[in-house]
Amino acid sequence: MPHEQPYSMMTASLVRPVRVLRVSPEGVSSRADVAATEEPVEVRIDGDPFAVIMRTPGADRELAAGFLFAERVILAASDIERIERDPRERNVMDVGIRDARDPGSRARNRRRVVTSSSCGLCGRVTIESLRVEAPEILADWTIDANLIATLPDALRRAQAVFNETGGLHAAGLFDRSGNLEAMAEDVGRHNAVDKVIGRMLLEGRLPLEHSVLFVSGRTSYEIVQKAFLAGVPVLGAVSAPSSLAVELAEEAGITLLGFVRGSTFNLYSHARRVAGWR
Amino acid sequence: MPHEQPYSMMTASLVRPVRVLRVSPEGVSSRADVAATEEPVEVRIDGDPFAVIMRTPGADRELAAGFLFAERVILAASDIERIERDPRERNVMDVGIRDARDPGSRARNRRRVVTSSSCGLCGRVTIESLRVEAPEILADWTIDANLIATLPDALRRAQAVFNETGGLHAAGLFDRSGNLEAMAEDVGRHNAVDKVIGRMLLEGRLPLEHSVLFVSGRTSYEIVQKAFLAGVPVLGAVSAPSSLAVELAEEAGITLLGFVRGSTFNLYSHARRVAGWR
Repeated sequence: MPHEQPYSMMTASLVRPVRVLRVSPEGVSSRADVAATEEPVEVRIDGDPFAVIMRTPGADRELAAGFLFAERVILAASDIERIERDPRERNVMDVGIRDARDPGSRARNRRRVVTSSSCGLCGRVTIESLRVEAPEILADWTIDANLIATLPDALRRAQAVFNETGGLHAAGLFDRSGNLEAMAEDVGRHNAVDKVIGRMLLEGRLPLEHSVLFVSGRTSYEIVQKAFLAGVPVLGAVSAPSSLAVELAEEAGITLLGFVRGSTFNLYSHARRVAGWR
Repeated sequence: MPHEQPYSMMTASLVRPVRVLRVSPEGVSSRADVAATEEPVEVRIDGDPFAVIMRTPGADRELAAGFLFAERVILAASDIERIERDPRERNVMDVGIRDARDPGSRARNRRRVVTSSSCGLCGRVTIESLRVEAPEILADWTIDANLIATLPDALRRAQAVFNETGGLHAAGLFDRSGNLEAMAEDVGRHNAVDKVIGRMLLEGRLPLEHSVLFVSGRTSYEIVQKAFLAGVPVLGAVSAPSSLAVELAEEAGITLLGFVRGSTFNLYSHARRVAGWR
């Protein structure tokens, strides 16, 4: 699996030219601008349509792998026989799967938990059914608070296109010393995370027990879920987490950071992994 | 369908208390904070599970209606027989449907277009298959540029919780004079839009041919799609649109505004509806 660009999975297709009228009290000017590219991609399993994802083209193999991993259709790289772009349709990725886990099993699993719970469908049950999928993260290394403060800038520097369009989310995987190991940009935050984790999956580097995942924007349940399944012990974001993101991080053993801006940040769970400034 | 709060669909459940460690070079302080509530809700059609949506509780009837409308399961309020919360499960909404449109028809429709197109699955085909669902928006009224500039503040004022958590998206529906007709907050931008459009649908006020929809954050294909199906002629956002959002707005007859900040904004399509400052 050769990668021409070691850190980024950027391609020219990240943006498209758009014509825009800039309106201000001073008047109206027409200018050439760019917008983050959004295109559908269909993921097929052994030729059968499984899902259509709206995404920014680039790293489609990684996206398909990361997505199927988060959906628990595959549990490891060894479950993948091949990932191929359809020769006639550029936005179709066909994934051949060895020992495919029935795509319906996840839904049934949730149902099973639901029927045995008094709360029915709620955040607690959602977390419980996910916890069946992976063990609590127990990694006991620490990361320096000073280093955490450098992550947003490091991600932004790697993310050349963000400043151009303001329309692309980014996810970056860092080692404990703050070195960027992988990053991806996408109109969807979930996709950016799937691309980064999918790449590591394809390279046989899961679980990511020595890594820090840092994302632009907010942290939802689904982002924490993806980090958890990949075994990431530290997850940070520029913006706020949701209530369920905080609850899942606590349950999953993940150190969750939010509002990482300037030299300050919030710590929502498992503070033991943050050293310095204390 | 009585509404106690005319403009907002806010409830106390929008946020949950969280304990947070605030870390800065000056030290660490523990404080009580809040996070935007995220909880799953299951939408059932005549008792059968149809989808699970991660959302912020509140306006669940509106969310279910708007979601099923955007998914083309229902085409009008008259297709809905009832929307009820399951008496035993607070996060389950059951929708009784009259003349239910087969949920699979939309997927088949897309397939049909795909097979007759040379590009296979791409943005063009995605737009073409959506355009089958509704007529181009031809409304010929204009909105003043000065009024557009007031929308972000108007939405923020109505959105009391945003400042508290930074974690809730908002969607607001305005009339041509800038009066707020409906607004909703949610951890998901799509949900906020579904809640607002779903409310108008339930009140029998679609198509929204005299309305401006304004959203926090970015504009994706899906946001424009929801506006289009509801017949909204003007769609604005605080941040950037994606390439496919711009293409669809152009095709659908929607005036798309982006980066509406201070007294400036970008105009991406159908500029004829913006007056003043020109």
